[in-house]
Amino acid sequence: MLNIATAPLATSISLAGGIGFIAGGYNTTLSNLETNLHHASQLIKSHADQSNPACKFYTQTGVLPLGVGFINWGVDRDEALRILRMYKVAAVWLFAPRDVGEFGGWVEGMRGLYEHRKDGDDVDGSKSKEWSTPQIWIQISSVAETTTALKALHPDVLVIQGSDAGGHGLARSASLLTLLPEISNLIAEHYPPSTKTTSNDHQHQPPTLLAAGGLTNGLTLSAALLLGATGGVMGTRFLASHEANIPGGYQNAILRAVDGGVNTVRSTVYDRVRDIKGWPERYDGRGVINASYLDAVGGMSDEENRGLYVEEMGRGDEGWDVEGKGRMTTYAGTGVGLIKEVLGAGEIVRQVWGEVVDVKRSVRARL
Amino acid sequence: MLNIATAPLATSISLAGGIGFIAGGYNTTLSNLETNLHHASQLIKSHADQSNPACKFYTQTGVLPLGVGFINWGVDRDEALRILRMYKVAAVWLFAPRDVGEFGGWVEGMRGLYEHRKDGDDVDGSKSKEWSTPQIWIQISSVAETTTALKALHPDVLVIQGSDAGGHGLARSASLLTLLPEISNLIAEHYPPSTKTTSNDHQHQPPTLLAAGGLTNGLTLSAALLLGATGGVMGTRFLASHEANIPGGYQNAILRAVDGGVNTVRSTVYDRVRDIKGWPERYDGRGVINASYLDAVGGMSDEENRGLYVEEMGRGDEGWDVEGKGRMTTYAGTGVGLIKEVLGAGEIVRQVWGEVVDVKRSVRARL
Repeated sequence: MLNIATAPLATSISLAGGIGFIAGGYNTTLSNLETNLHHASQLIKSHADQSNPACKFYTQTGVLPLGVGFINWGVDRDEALRILRMYKVAAVWLFAPRDVGEFGGWVEGMRGLYEHRKDGDDVDGSKSKEWSTPQIWIQISSVAETTTALKALHPDVLVIQGSDAGGHGLARSASLLTLLPEISNLIAEHYPPSTKTTSNDHQHQPPTLLAAGGLTNGLTLSAALLLGATGGVMGTRFLASHEANIPGGYQNAILRAVDGGVNTVRSTVYDRVRDIKGWPERYDGRGVINASYLDAVGGMSDEENRGLYVEEMGRGDEGWDVEGKGRMTTYAGTGVGLIKEVLGAGEIVRQVWGEVVDVKRSVRARL
Repeated sequence: MLNIATAPLATSISLAGGIGFIAGGYNTTLSNLETNLHHASQLIKSHADQSNPACKFYTQTGVLPLGVGFINWGVDRDEALRILRMYKVAAVWLFAPRDVGEFGGWVEGMRGLYEHRKDGDDVDGSKSKEWSTPQIWIQISSVAETTTALKALHPDVLVIQGSDAGGHGLARSASLLTLLPEISNLIAEHYPPSTKTTSNDHQHQPPTLLAAGGLTNGLTLSAALLLGATGGVMGTRFLASHEANIPGGYQNAILRAVDGGVNTVRSTVYDRVRDIKGWPERYDGRGVINASYLDAVGGMSDEENRGLYVEEMGRGDEGWDVEGKGRMTTYAGTGVGLIKEVLGAGEIVRQVWGEVVDVKRSVRARL
């Protein structure tokens, strides 16, 4: 959700009791990240409601109550860490390295941030130990990636992304239905109960498992919780929020799309027409089927397809035409058909949570 | 599971309290179907335990306590109906027509079977009204297919197949995580509560929703139940059963496979190397990645690939080599990594049901 998940979306989610993330993205967007973090700090300060846990947290720790996500293959680590030293954040989300082993340097760098902060080498001089290093979130989509992450990295959070997710992810992946149980089993083997109870060492605590991919409401989130997750992450749902920095045409396309399994597709064409190079080969992205995809399948060259995309950019919101005629990229997960209205991001957080409570109540009545 | 789900597997499942299905398949396999139904009737009769509900049902109704599945694009309706007149079955499962509208003639034909049976035109002369027409099960994988099925067909059961399923299915589909809720919403709109309570007309009763695709144990089945299904269907899990008519090499490959999202793939190559023609374009099949797939991706012609497949058939169980070196097709769902042992089919049914009870107990304790 690069350039869409900016300061207003992230702060609204955090102020409502979730944890919002700003899309840090690639090198070329790191200047936006700095602007966004500054904007977020202003938004939190201006909210000025000390009964809100997120505001209180910021006042007490100087740490922004939100996270930053990076697309690892395309971002300079030192520059990213420089920005994170200027603006403390609660969590850093790492995704899509060339190789998952590369995360090691990042994790080390972030643990290093902690030292800087202990010495007061941060913008507000806070010494709070508990929050002075960001939580490390690592996004994976397979058992193999999980094994590597556990062996080398000791992340605080594993974001487990299933095949229903919108935007970029592993081209080949299972949905949360089978991926979560298989990874849960692996975690249980890796952190046997005896280890958990006898050691407080961070390296021996199992990571928190968060689910991503297809979570659009309280019911789908509840299923992920049943399958072994502690919480869930939503992307596509927030495209239909007032705070999303998204063209009206894109947002309308999200509301219009139904039957997400057949009307979205995983493909690399949406990167190719936008001339985005560098994603490792194992990734592609799920988006609503449009003319770029249909033409590519029909045999059109990337060059011609890209030319038509560039022309389409001039059409504004018309570029998200109905029935596969538009060419503007419309990343979305398979749950897009469950999204029917644009709401405030905070309202979405509260609504989904309310739905989870309803599901619990309904399940309790049936058991 | 053509040629794998034969009489022993189907009857064991039914005798354990599930409902087993014999794979009827295409025209070329209809003679096997007749043999299988005869075999199944012998197995049920020889079981001869009238305290078993399935045996009792057969004695009382003359209807085999199991179902038959057809691959619709490739099967002659009249011939299939002729066999179903000879051997009454509890359910007929229809899948993969050239167009979902074609189901109409099948459904009509099966409703017609009912008349035949009322007149005693069946093998054992049973007149039981309630069971003298098979239940009609229709397998779909999208909201669009569901809409068509509901408008024209009034099936007893909709089998909702998500993208995690092994073997054939829609090339583009969502997992059960988003597909079940979207279809449940559609059903709720199509059969508003007032209609349900004021009419006993079959055409106004909503179909039973069964989930398929990724269900390998009680936990995944429980998630499907939470998401709106009344029950679940398992295929891949029964490949690792004693009763499956499956080569040892194939069965071992199922036990060995892990990380099903990355180590299986949806592709048409497994049909192409086996020279199976006729699947409508929207279908492909999910199988464990092997040399056929890797070579196809590498640019090998179908002709050469097929030649290598035919050679491989001579290698017996060695044709399911590890690490993508074998060429024998290994259809399997993404849940394959959750399958660790070969059990009796009846034991699988009881185990999964026990796990569902455990999940209920665990959820109740947490609520």
